[in-house]
Amino acid sequence: MSPEKKFRKAVELIIGEKPSNMEVYQLAFRHTSASKETNIKGFRESNERLEFLGDSVLGMVIAEYLFKKFPYKDEGFLTEIRSRIVNRETLNGIARKIGLDRLIEFDGNRKGMPPNSSMYGDALEALVGAVYLDKGFRFTRKFITKELLTHYDLDALINNNANFKSRLIEWAQREGKEVRFMIVEEKGSRHFREFISQVILNGEVFAQGSGYSKKKAEQSAAEKACEQLELK
Amino acid sequence: MSPEKKFRKAVELIIGEKPSNMEVYQLAFRHTSASKETNIKGFRESNERLEFLGDSVLGMVIAEYLFKKFPYKDEGFLTEIRSRIVNRETLNGIARKIGLDRLIEFDGNRKGMPPNSSMYGDALEALVGAVYLDKGFRFTRKFITKELLTHYDLDALINNNANFKSRLIEWAQREGKEVRFMIVEEKGSRHFREFISQVILNGEVFAQGSGYSKKKAEQSAAEKACEQLELK
Repeated sequence: MSPEKKFRKAVELIIGEKPSNMEVYQLAFRHTSASKETNIKGFRESNERLEFLGDSVLGMVIAEYLFKKFPYKDEGFLTEIRSRIVNRETLNGIARKIGLDRLIEFDGNRKGMPPNSSMYGDALEALVGAVYLDKGFRFTRKFITKELLTHYDLDALINNNANFKSRLIEWAQREGKEVRFMIVEEKGSRHFREFISQVILNGEVFAQGSGYSKKKAEQSAAEKACEQLELK
Repeated sequence: MSPEKKFRKAVELIIGEKPSNMEVYQLAFRHTSASKETNIKGFRESNERLEFLGDSVLGMVIAEYLFKKFPYKDEGFLTEIRSRIVNRETLNGIARKIGLDRLIEFDGNRKGMPPNSSMYGDALEALVGAVYLDKGFRFTRKFITKELLTHYDLDALINNNANFKSRLIEWAQREGKEVRFMIVEEKGSRHFREFISQVILNGEVFAQGSGYSKKKAEQSAAEKACEQLELK
């Protein structure tokens, strides 16, 4: 099989339908390090523009999915769960799971490529952008909810961090210590706010964490405290 | 005309088609201060969930619009222009322009309602969410590009801040001063990064500004410097 045909087959397997416009998929897997000159002076083409588009499509489809799945949860919850779903590390993992790592074109000899880069997650977003341009909105929504969200354990994601705080509080009660949480900073814009929380143990700052909501920041701080205390 | 009929007519005028599911529009204009108890304990209903949804739809439609309109601009430019378009103050202005201020239901007697709140822009986002639920994606995309984006002067938006930096540099050349820009801080996540830039005038920090890109941060710093120098 020719490399072109192999690539076409691989894309078909991933998206679940024959791709039409192969160019957008080729572009989706072209990392900046392998970007190509274009006829436009100073404009090199890579998957970064598609990533911008795909990021917004992914965010919107997940917003709708959560909005409908949780009709009685407020927008803070929805924002938080979405940010966990589109978390860079999680996206990297899913990108590998569906085999994107074998398709990405990059220049491994270039400097400045961190081994744990966000390359795979970025390519996954770019792929979403490519699917959208090639197949339209409805297909892309189905692709995201059927092919991507299926790799998530949503319950685990929701309950995930909730454990650290209660684990820490239980430990403190057992050990007769006093534990408090304090939000020490709040920054950013409305939908992408960041909070910083500290764990105060017997009156002293013990650990610090940040997150997109107060709860998340507290959980992140609690997680760090649990790590330091080696609470499993 | 009954208040219900008036409301229906007003929505029809704004979205350009007869609304079907009136409930979502009613909810879109219900500010938190006028939120209502539901059958679910502890869950009060206001337009905040719809705002979350609408925000993501708006972001995505504008992403696609810019992606297609500017095929040779990189994702930094696209991100930047989108953030100017969905800027809270700008959205507030457009919400008033299309008459949302007359439809919003809020409790003006409640405390904590700043007079310059983001209430109108929030309601506009919620309206986008309502239109999406009522009419689907294609209609909403048309609504955003035809009815909302038409209120923008895109060229002005793009060139907007570019003036301050060159204005400052021209002034410095005229006056024989040395002016430099320095990025002093970079924070935030990938797509919502924030940069802080300083204007250094004859070796001393003269002004500071922040923005979603280095360029924007420099422009913001330059704008402040221009203000201080009273350069018109």
